[in-house]
Amino acid sequence: MESLVGIATPALHLDRERLNKNARRLLNRAQQLGVGLRPHLKTLKSIDVARIAIDPRHGGIAAATLNEAHYFATHGLSDIQLAVCLPPTKFARAADIHKLAPRFSFFIDSVEVAHAAAGFSRSAGIALSAWIEIETGGQRTGVLPDSAELVAIAGALKDGAQLAGVATHAGQSYGDNQVEQIVAIAEQERSSVVAAAERLRAAGFEVPGVSAGSTPTTTHARSAAGLTEWRAGVYLAGDLYQAAIGSMQLEDVALDVVASVISHRRERRLIVIDAGGLALSKDRSTAQLAGRDGGYGLVTDLSGRPVFGALHVRGVHQEHGEIHGVTDAQFDALPIGARVRVVPNHACMTAAMYGEYLVTDGGLDIAARWPRTNGWG
Amino acid sequence: MESLVGIATPALHLDRERLNKNARRLLNRAQQLGVGLRPHLKTLKSIDVARIAIDPRHGGIAAATLNEAHYFATHGLSDIQLAVCLPPTKFARAADIHKLAPRFSFFIDSVEVAHAAAGFSRSAGIALSAWIEIETGGQRTGVLPDSAELVAIAGALKDGAQLAGVATHAGQSYGDNQVEQIVAIAEQERSSVVAAAERLRAAGFEVPGVSAGSTPTTTHARSAAGLTEWRAGVYLAGDLYQAAIGSMQLEDVALDVVASVISHRRERRLIVIDAGGLALSKDRSTAQLAGRDGGYGLVTDLSGRPVFGALHVRGVHQEHGEIHGVTDAQFDALPIGARVRVVPNHACMTAAMYGEYLVTDGGLDIAARWPRTNGWG
Repeated sequence: MESLVGIATPALHLDRERLNKNARRLLNRAQQLGVGLRPHLKTLKSIDVARIAIDPRHGGIAAATLNEAHYFATHGLSDIQLAVCLPPTKFARAADIHKLAPRFSFFIDSVEVAHAAAGFSRSAGIALSAWIEIETGGQRTGVLPDSAELVAIAGALKDGAQLAGVATHAGQSYGDNQVEQIVAIAEQERSSVVAAAERLRAAGFEVPGVSAGSTPTTTHARSAAGLTEWRAGVYLAGDLYQAAIGSMQLEDVALDVVASVISHRRERRLIVIDAGGLALSKDRSTAQLAGRDGGYGLVTDLSGRPVFGALHVRGVHQEHGEIHGVTDAQFDALPIGARVRVVPNHACMTAAMYGEYLVTDGGLDIAARWPRTNGWG
Repeated sequence: MESLVGIATPALHLDRERLNKNARRLLNRAQQLGVGLRPHLKTLKSIDVARIAIDPRHGGIAAATLNEAHYFATHGLSDIQLAVCLPPTKFARAADIHKLAPRFSFFIDSVEVAHAAAGFSRSAGIALSAWIEIETGGQRTGVLPDSAELVAIAGALKDGAQLAGVATHAGQSYGDNQVEQIVAIAEQERSSVVAAAERLRAAGFEVPGVSAGSTPTTTHARSAAGLTEWRAGVYLAGDLYQAAIGSMQLEDVALDVVASVISHRRERRLIVIDAGGLALSKDRSTAQLAGRDGGYGLVTDLSGRPVFGALHVRGVHQEHGEIHGVTDAQFDALPIGARVRVVPNHACMTAAMYGEYLVTDGGLDIAARWPRTNGWG
């Protein structure tokens, strides 16, 4: 059997035991709170992962690009929510996916696009299905739950397209928060999107779906009342950032980069590895977390254990990662050619650099290679 | 003819006129200074680009990964310098490339690896060819020009492998420098690597190649005496960072991302586009340049003109790019669905997210689609 010990580096490793555990943990929480779970596959972009993560009580997934949506549709999934606003210029591609995946849907946040979706649907003889995105503090896309636009969008859509529901993502839950703050954000996310649904219902619209979530808010929410589904993604893989903000334990992180030591500069207490800015990404999200700056990733030995204390990649060039302040014992433990694992800051960004996962079941043996999709197309 | 106006976004656009001009500019400088030019294809990773960039007086290229080297070897290039130190665990793959590209070479910076290269060469019945990497201020890999290691590595290599020469890259030239400082760094880079070559020659070694360079130092160097070749890469594409530090004019940047407007949040003076952290990369290199922080990229209209003043992508999520402080005139000029161009901070990082270039000749018509290679494999 192939092993991590012999692979070409850098490579992307996924620990299936941890993935299963992470998937189960949120499925159980969702079940306890009586809400469906729509796993967001934007992080791992793999049908093999989707099969593990899908909630059998729900059946759907979320995606972040038309390419991902098309990929999952060609793999037989039907309920695919593209959780990003689409401009009308993308409706033709959306209609192609709709033909493969009858429950394909996407986000909108303007009356103008709602009109266009209705008009396109009438011309094409299909009913595009759209979620009205609600802004609940993330300050990105979406309309406010008490805005006039909300009802106007639903009205415009009705004229040919379908209203899938209302949906939100409280992106501010990714800030440097204490658990009690995340609990409060989760409650704001929930109550605001439910209020939007109630307003639409009071105005006479049918609102089948009420969708909310993020990894931090679904991890800590105390209630899912009024929601039909949660949406979260990075919980499946985890990363340094999610471990640092308390969404999971560090030892539950399922994704890392396997890299090789390529240079020892003992005179500068420097080890250089072959995973740099491309292999790890330039995400520096943990830098904003006081006292928890993980550099460009946490370095362990190939078994995932620390190497005589915590080592981080603190500098990157395109294909070089720099580990500074290396002790003699660490140099001896990591000779040139030695393979290490690097737990990244942000799984979504790092995974996107690779075409496949080397899948293990906790050890070093490679049990499978799972392809992933990338790009936009 | 296909046009940028109708394409799916985000997509990677390469202006061939500017590419040609950038390629010629450095070829002319190299010729004037009497040095060969080895274009580094780590930025653009495309055989079509290689054909434009290769110096007919030299013939070689540089690459940063075994995958790139293999790709160029399968496209018939012979002189490929992998400008990164390889551990012995990668020699088997190197030997495979060597069979396709007889002048394939790579970097080393330790006696231990030099011994391994010689031993591998003897066993495999080929002569691996290695450049000794010299540290000339970049503080990454490489041995000091006056170190005992330098001569010891050459001695160890000789026992079966080939010494291609000495090579360096003054990475510190990418700092926030004035032109006079870059001139000084270029001179230090040149004189140090030439000194290393002279030391080896004095010790009785043949040193065929003396290789140095970076985009800033080759742009500003006053002398190339003693060098056999320059090596530079990002000059071909350019980016906000290179324009900001004076390696080129902004209007010479040949690479950008075509994106679509997906949301107007007039109440927050926000336009959201479909190019976020993945489509642009999370590189923030211009943030360290006082007064020249380009956010995640400079936004222009589809023709490359500013939209009523400078707009930047100032925030990103995975698939969302945020343009803040938008005026009414800018909202009107960029309706939902409008396509824009985003000039990235760092071409090497951004281009790596795409599988192909949409090539234009300065206008909007797409003259070609050029594939590029990615990953490590």
